[in-house]
Amino acid sequence: MTLDEHWFSEAARGFGMSLMIRQKLHEEQTPYQKIEIYDTERFGRLMTLDGITMLTGRDNFIYHEMMTHPALFAHARPLDVVVVGGGDCGSLHEVLKHPDINTVTQVELDERVTRVSEQFFPELCASNGDPRATLLFEDAIAWMRDATAASADVIVLDTTDPVGQAERLFSMAFYRDCHRVLRDGGILVAQSESPFLDLDILKGLRGEMTAAGFGELRTLQFYLPTYPSGWWSATLAAKNHAFEGLGKPAADSNSVQTRYYSPEIVRAALVLPPWLQAELGQISDIRHQTSDYRQQ
Amino acid sequence: MTLDEHWFSEAARGFGMSLMIRQKLHEEQTPYQKIEIYDTERFGRLMTLDGITMLTGRDNFIYHEMMTHPALFAHARPLDVVVVGGGDCGSLHEVLKHPDINTVTQVELDERVTRVSEQFFPELCASNGDPRATLLFEDAIAWMRDATAASADVIVLDTTDPVGQAERLFSMAFYRDCHRVLRDGGILVAQSESPFLDLDILKGLRGEMTAAGFGELRTLQFYLPTYPSGWWSATLAAKNHAFEGLGKPAADSNSVQTRYYSPEIVRAALVLPPWLQAELGQISDIRHQTSDYRQQ
Repeated sequence: MTLDEHWFSEAARGFGMSLMIRQKLHEEQTPYQKIEIYDTERFGRLMTLDGITMLTGRDNFIYHEMMTHPALFAHARPLDVVVVGGGDCGSLHEVLKHPDINTVTQVELDERVTRVSEQFFPELCASNGDPRATLLFEDAIAWMRDATAASADVIVLDTTDPVGQAERLFSMAFYRDCHRVLRDGGILVAQSESPFLDLDILKGLRGEMTAAGFGELRTLQFYLPTYPSGWWSATLAAKNHAFEGLGKPAADSNSVQTRYYSPEIVRAALVLPPWLQAELGQISDIRHQTSDYRQQ
Repeated sequence: MTLDEHWFSEAARGFGMSLMIRQKLHEEQTPYQKIEIYDTERFGRLMTLDGITMLTGRDNFIYHEMMTHPALFAHARPLDVVVVGGGDCGSLHEVLKHPDINTVTQVELDERVTRVSEQFFPELCASNGDPRATLLFEDAIAWMRDATAASADVIVLDTTDPVGQAERLFSMAFYRDCHRVLRDGGILVAQSESPFLDLDILKGLRGEMTAAGFGELRTLQFYLPTYPSGWWSATLAAKNHAFEGLGKPAADSNSVQTRYYSPEIVRAALVLPPWLQAELGQISDIRHQTSDYRQQ
């Protein structure tokens, strides 16, 4: 079959993903990109940037929960958080579920992404007026370069794919600035593409993070049906500490309502299949390992 | 964008998946279905039945490993195995990696699926001549009804979606016959569709299995990029025993080479996100649970 104009389709790397649409609700060209909003048949509303899926109403909770809660609960005491990108405000919303957070600063290049989200995804923007939140619309590269050293506990890189403007957000130079801005014990978390389709990007990003001075890395996998292959990842990098708390039940975790995240899900998300462990250099061949996965 | 004739596309439930193709290598109409083989740009060869993806050369290893090894390693001593469907012979091939298996009987309706697989997926059919293997081409409903009671240790339901012919393979009546054919301690494993897109099918199948007399069920999740949503599942049902061995390292596991399966992956695959636990009645609400996931 061919997929006609009743479908939104996105295709790259020989793989296509499509969602059946009822109508286009909005379209605008900003100085940075083309924003489109669709009403889909089965996935709620869809936002695309330059024709690439950013989120749907139906499954964005998985992405936003996994980009925030694993790092926040792994940190001993996160007070100040920076979100880079994340203009739909979904990550901001999840961060603000943590009652002990003092400040969240969101640094998004394109203010129109946030304004359009406020209109079409109000549930993600419900916390934008929280007094702990600061929404900045500027270049994150310059912002991070100029930010005060040791001023953040968690930095969330909620970026688009490493293409065009966003490519610099996957570089050692930028990660080094993040490292400087983090306090000791701080955690950087980046969306790190599909382990299945984009393995080179994942490997490259891990290499750049290590070169930037981060001692420990952990890549989490999660299901994301509307991103290519449905198999997505986030990579966490620690500044001057180990990831002992990652996936452990936190004392305050019951105050944060989630639908995908749980401490058990984090521990499971850390378990990579043998072929991926081999690709990331964690085992020397792909024969499966019988050691307890928590030791990986 | 629209996806034209350079793409194979499959769409249902408002969701589409497409693979870029170089050419169609084979097409035939059998008494049961239309078989097509494509050469894709990035996913190796693709087999479809009536326009639905059965497998690609690139990611079928995940499906076939997860349909077989978790159940086989969870069983105390599997000797006799039955594969229902599975005409591409990939599940058969994985089962025969276990050196202590005595017999594997594959009951596929459409002999042409196997003959076409021998031609286009020879790596999956490499064990078809194994003296432990018997390939039957007949209706599995009748075969299971007439099979000797207590003659199998593991039954693998490697079926197509529950549509048309295959619908009866998702029914209590058929599961009851499987229960009868299993020995005590036996395990039934069924591909159980996408937990994200096909939750009603998964719930229905679990209900039918329970009604058929299976005491314990476990649903495993795994990534499968070329099946809709990329989020797939297998459900295991035990006859007169508990799943104590599921996901534990087996003494003989090093003799079986795998790329996705590992004992740790099985334990991780059992961890369902809170919303899915709630849907399957395993927790009473979706607030995340802090209990150890192995207690689920």
